[in-house]
Amino acid sequence: MSFREMWDALLPIGRGPDGGYRRFAWTEAELACRAWFVAEARRRDLDLERDRNGNLFAWWGGRGPDAVVTGSHLDSVPGGGAFDGPLGVVSALAALDELRAQGVRPARPLGIAVFAEEEGARFGVACLGSRLLTGAISPERARTLTDATGTTLAEALTAADTSWADGTAGAALDPGGIGRDEELLGRIGCFVELHVEQGRALEVPVGVASAIWPHGRWRLDFHGRGDHAGTTRLADRQDPMLPFAHTVLAARAAAERHEALATVGKVQVVPGGVNAIPSRVTAWLDARGPADQAVRNAVADVRQAAEDAGKLHGVTVEFGEESYSEIVAFNTGLLDRLIAPIERAGLPMPPVLPTGAGHDAGILSAHVPTAMIFVRNPTGISHAPQEYAEEADCLAGVRALAAVLQDLVSA
Amino acid sequence: MSFREMWDALLPIGRGPDGGYRRFAWTEAELACRAWFVAEARRRDLDLERDRNGNLFAWWGGRGPDAVVTGSHLDSVPGGGAFDGPLGVVSALAALDELRAQGVRPARPLGIAVFAEEEGARFGVACLGSRLLTGAISPERARTLTDATGTTLAEALTAADTSWADGTAGAALDPGGIGRDEELLGRIGCFVELHVEQGRALEVPVGVASAIWPHGRWRLDFHGRGDHAGTTRLADRQDPMLPFAHTVLAARAAAERHEALATVGKVQVVPGGVNAIPSRVTAWLDARGPADQAVRNAVADVRQAAEDAGKLHGVTVEFGEESYSEIVAFNTGLLDRLIAPIERAGLPMPPVLPTGAGHDAGILSAHVPTAMIFVRNPTGISHAPQEYAEEADCLAGVRALAAVLQDLVSA
Repeated sequence: MSFREMWDALLPIGRGPDGGYRRFAWTEAELACRAWFVAEARRRDLDLERDRNGNLFAWWGGRGPDAVVTGSHLDSVPGGGAFDGPLGVVSALAALDELRAQGVRPARPLGIAVFAEEEGARFGVACLGSRLLTGAISPERARTLTDATGTTLAEALTAADTSWADGTAGAALDPGGIGRDEELLGRIGCFVELHVEQGRALEVPVGVASAIWPHGRWRLDFHGRGDHAGTTRLADRQDPMLPFAHTVLAARAAAERHEALATVGKVQVVPGGVNAIPSRVTAWLDARGPADQAVRNAVADVRQAAEDAGKLHGVTVEFGEESYSEIVAFNTGLLDRLIAPIERAGLPMPPVLPTGAGHDAGILSAHVPTAMIFVRNPTGISHAPQEYAEEADCLAGVRALAAVLQDLVSA
Repeated sequence: MSFREMWDALLPIGRGPDGGYRRFAWTEAELACRAWFVAEARRRDLDLERDRNGNLFAWWGGRGPDAVVTGSHLDSVPGGGAFDGPLGVVSALAALDELRAQGVRPARPLGIAVFAEEEGARFGVACLGSRLLTGAISPERARTLTDATGTTLAEALTAADTSWADGTAGAALDPGGIGRDEELLGRIGCFVELHVEQGRALEVPVGVASAIWPHGRWRLDFHGRGDHAGTTRLADRQDPMLPFAHTVLAARAAAERHEALATVGKVQVVPGGVNAIPSRVTAWLDARGPADQAVRNAVADVRQAAEDAGKLHGVTVEFGEESYSEIVAFNTGLLDRLIAPIERAGLPMPPVLPTGAGHDAGILSAHVPTAMIFVRNPTGISHAPQEYAEEADCLAGVRALAAVLQDLVSA
């Protein structure tokens, strides 16, 4: 199976009429992606392992120790693009094929990983699979995370029809067994994640990551009083939509002021009737920036603005941090080691750049030497159907990854 | 069945954990309410008629001509209260019982009506049943209205399992047959709707309506460009959430400026991911006021603000009117005729007041003499679980309605 053949097989899974993907963790579409991966691993006689947290690993040359691991994720944001995640998995399989075609005999085991719920689109916590693996989230908290329909992670993991996709012959995941996996972590010598670039920072096909910006998610609940839109005087209203709107604008202003990013992309209005003043508006704030302090200052300003606007309108505001990831500086030794193989593969010297996007690599970097390879994104669009990379650049990414892996597995 | 017994039978149907109701037209909960009404009509040996538009009528003394019709609706807004609609239906049945107990033999037929989809909570057009009956909406447009899941009205009407609730023994409604019903309209001599008051304008148990404020609904689509929340520079964004937020605040300011009401109670964000800049935000504006010009001016200001904010953020704005109802002044002859019977029933002189809420009575008033009786609402809250009326006031409402009906059916 060539890169193109693998890519084409994945392309229709979970795609909506507008071309956007909806591959939420442990739903039908994402399970189909997992089943695709399992089939590709078996086709290559790789040793398949589903860890205690629902992450998949396909091993060549043993399961460790000191394994070189690559890979990414297969889940998507709602209405996401085809590349964010799957490009890293498909490229890993294609790079392994290239190593084998060149007759490489690895001195260290090579593993290809598929991490679960990287986007956090279903249960609200990004990089959930790698967070569980590394202990960055407690199993108690994880088990009680709920999706939009109220299903808990524990319930989703034990759902009868999910294990087929993991190739585990009916053995469902045990939600009692999730959490930090010391044994598996101990087998990983280093991790290299290939990913589509998500801005317009790359002018050559391939680059490498210096750092992941600090980033987090905050939930804001504006509690007002539901009432009739046609009979409640303006002065009598406690309409949570108004402080919510103030907060959206305040978030943009705070981001500008602190040279950070702030986005409100998800909103729930209760009860949501055209002729009803809402009783509650819940919104999620995503904030990021080049430095922790910039993000913290921006978020503090948003919180202050939300509370001030709430007071003005008789609306109480709850402000809670759902997740926060401090700045991740990738391992400089590993980073330096990537450059030469990429150049030897005939590619231009890879630029070293930071990214505002979170990745499983960011979570793993606290535990094992970790690096990232980025593939050029001509428009910079991501998390949208228009997300795109040229096929030539994707193939350059595979060559770069193969060269890096060859170097790493050789000693 | 006493008023209290009927009330208690309806109370649990479609009630959520927070006490709010969700009785959307032709869904399970609203069908259960219809079945309840059919049983009550049969218990009283009334002649049951489902009209071509899905409205129910229970007749005493023939189906017309020159019938006195009373009643209201049984559907609710999402998270609505128990009184808006059902109070008028239960009171109508209880008033009929009172007339019979007093040995009244009506000289004119008496009909009790249950109008379909009064709130417009499912298909977006308020008073849909009475609009269809009177021709205020074309059957072509009505058939293609869709609910949140994409089901059209035509599909909902032909759903196999709805006719049981209407007592029509398996005869489904024919969506081809909906539309103005001249024959039925010709049988209605006058219409009196009893309804819970939805503001705090009543200081005595019962009042009567002078007018319904002009009111309407507008849909605003903000089309931006979906993108990654962590990697898209502020300057590169076309984030529709920002002009939407501007518009919410502009709507409040416009309402204050023009002494009208404006509410944004329903919002949809696409794709709705925490870490995705939305590609589209759709919002609905509800606007009302004491005079057409006030509403028109307020809405024009909101539209201008939305378009200005859209331009600022590279977001295109579509602005469409979904419905508009001009001011309704109720028939003064009928209104005058209500006062004396209400006083004879031992109640204080009923205040005459306008309302900002739309009602089927407003639609019918263009075709037959129409009046409304309001029952006091101590908090003024409506379209919310806290909507409330004292039982003593409800029973006063029944006495008032019975007295009015007795007067009307006697000649």
